[in-house]
Amino acid sequence: MEELLYEGKAKQLFQTEDPNILRVKYKDDATAFNGEKKARLTGKGELNNQIAAWFFQFLKDKGVPNHFIRMISPTEQLVKKVAIIPLEVVVRNIVAGSLAKRLGLEEGTSLRQPVVEFYYKNDDLGDPLINQDHIAVLELASEEQLHEMKTIALQVNELIRGQMDRLGITLVDFKLEFGIDAEGRVLLADEISPDTCRFWDQRTKERLDKDRFRRDLGQVIEAYEEILSRLGGKQGV
Amino acid sequence: MEELLYEGKAKQLFQTEDPNILRVKYKDDATAFNGEKKARLTGKGELNNQIAAWFFQFLKDKGVPNHFIRMISPTEQLVKKVAIIPLEVVVRNIVAGSLAKRLGLEEGTSLRQPVVEFYYKNDDLGDPLINQDHIAVLELASEEQLHEMKTIALQVNELIRGQMDRLGITLVDFKLEFGIDAEGRVLLADEISPDTCRFWDQRTKERLDKDRFRRDLGQVIEAYEEILSRLGGKQGV
Repeated sequence: MEELLYEGKAKQLFQTEDPNILRVKYKDDATAFNGEKKARLTGKGELNNQIAAWFFQFLKDKGVPNHFIRMISPTEQLVKKVAIIPLEVVVRNIVAGSLAKRLGLEEGTSLRQPVVEFYYKNDDLGDPLINQDHIAVLELASEEQLHEMKTIALQVNELIRGQMDRLGITLVDFKLEFGIDAEGRVLLADEISPDTCRFWDQRTKERLDKDRFRRDLGQVIEAYEEILSRLGGKQGV
Repeated sequence: MEELLYEGKAKQLFQTEDPNILRVKYKDDATAFNGEKKARLTGKGELNNQIAAWFFQFLKDKGVPNHFIRMISPTEQLVKKVAIIPLEVVVRNIVAGSLAKRLGLEEGTSLRQPVVEFYYKNDDLGDPLINQDHIAVLELASEEQLHEMKTIALQVNELIRGQMDRLGITLVDFKLEFGIDAEGRVLLADEISPDTCRFWDQRTKERLDKDRFRRDLGQVIEAYEEILSRLGGKQGV
C-alpha cells in the first residue's frame, strides 16, 4: 500500500512509486473556522477533485504551470511532488469574509484593484495575516519567490475571473498555495475549488462556495454541483 | 484663546496664529489596549515633551526632517502643521508585544533584520495590521509615500538604535506617524517617547517604557525619568 504522507482537513496525500509524483485523494470532510466546525458532505470529495482538475488543466493550457498531472479516479488526482511553502496567498476582487472585518468595509464592495494577502499557515496561531518583512524574518520564502507567488496569483485571478464571468459567476476571492518542486521552482499547488474560492452567482446573487457551509446556508453540495455543471460537468477519468 | 484642533489619548493640538504651526500639549494621561486601561501619571506629560523634543532635534541634526520646531513650556512644543496619514508605522528589532503573539516567537528574540509594519489607525477596528494592497485600496497613501515612510522609519531606527545603544539601552521597537505638510511632502510627525518605543535597559534588563504601565510593573514615571536622564536630563525652555 502506498504511504500516507499527509492528511489535511480536506485531502490525503500519498506517495506513489515515482518519488516525484503524489496521489491526492479529495475527502468528503468539510471544516471551517480553523477546524472548530466540522461535517461530512457526501460527494464533496468527488466534486472538488473534478473542479480542481478542471481549473488546474485550464491554467496549464493558459501557460500557468502547476502541480496537476491528471485525474485517476473520481476522487483522486496525480500531482507533482512539491515542498509546500507555509503561506496562504489570498487574492480579493470584492470585499468578503475577514477583509470586511479588518478594514471595516461592507461585504460586496468592489475593490479598485485586486488585493493580495499572505497568511502564515499555522493552525496554532490561527493563520495570521503577515507582511513581506515577517516572511523574511521567518525565512518562509525569498523576496524573489514572494514576488513570483504574487505575480502568478494575479495571473490566476485574471484568468479564472474572466472564465467564471463568462459563466455568469463572480470570482470574489480565492486562496492559493505554492510549493517548491524538485528543480527548485515555485509551482502553484494545493487546490482550486469552492472550498478555496468565493463564487457568487451573478443573476441570483447566491453564494456557490464554502460560505454555504460556514454560514449554515444549506444546499452546499448543490452549489458545488452548480459550479461543476457550469464548467461543463463531470469528466470521465 | 487658541482653538483646540484635536485631543488624542496623550496629547492636545492647538492652532496658533500661524496657520502652518500647531502647539502640542503633552498630557499626563496614560492609556493602553485601545483605551480600555486608563490612568493619570503625574509628570508624564513633561517627561514626554522633553524626550520627544530631544529625539526630534537629534533626528533633525542627523538630517531626518520632522515636524518639531521648539519647546515652548515644560509640557508644550511647537510643530509644523501636517495632515496625519492614518497609519501607524512600527519598526521592530526584537520580538515583543503583538509580534510575539502573531508569529509565535518568544519575547526577546532578536530579528535577523528590522521588521516594518503598517497598522491602520482606526480605534473602531482596533488598529489592524494591513499590507500595501490594503493601503492602496483604502487610498491611505500612495506607493511612493509608502516607500518614503518605510525608508525614513528604517533611518530613524538606525539612528535612535545606535544612540540608545551608547546609553546602555536597547531599542526593541517603536511606532511612528507621518503627515503631509503644506508643500505636499511626507514629514515625520507625532511623538517619539517611552509611550511609543520599547526601551530595555541592557544591564538590568528592565523595561523603561509604557510596558511598565500596560503590564502593571510599577515605577512608570521613574522609568521615563531614567530615559530622560540618560539623554542628558531636563532642558530649559
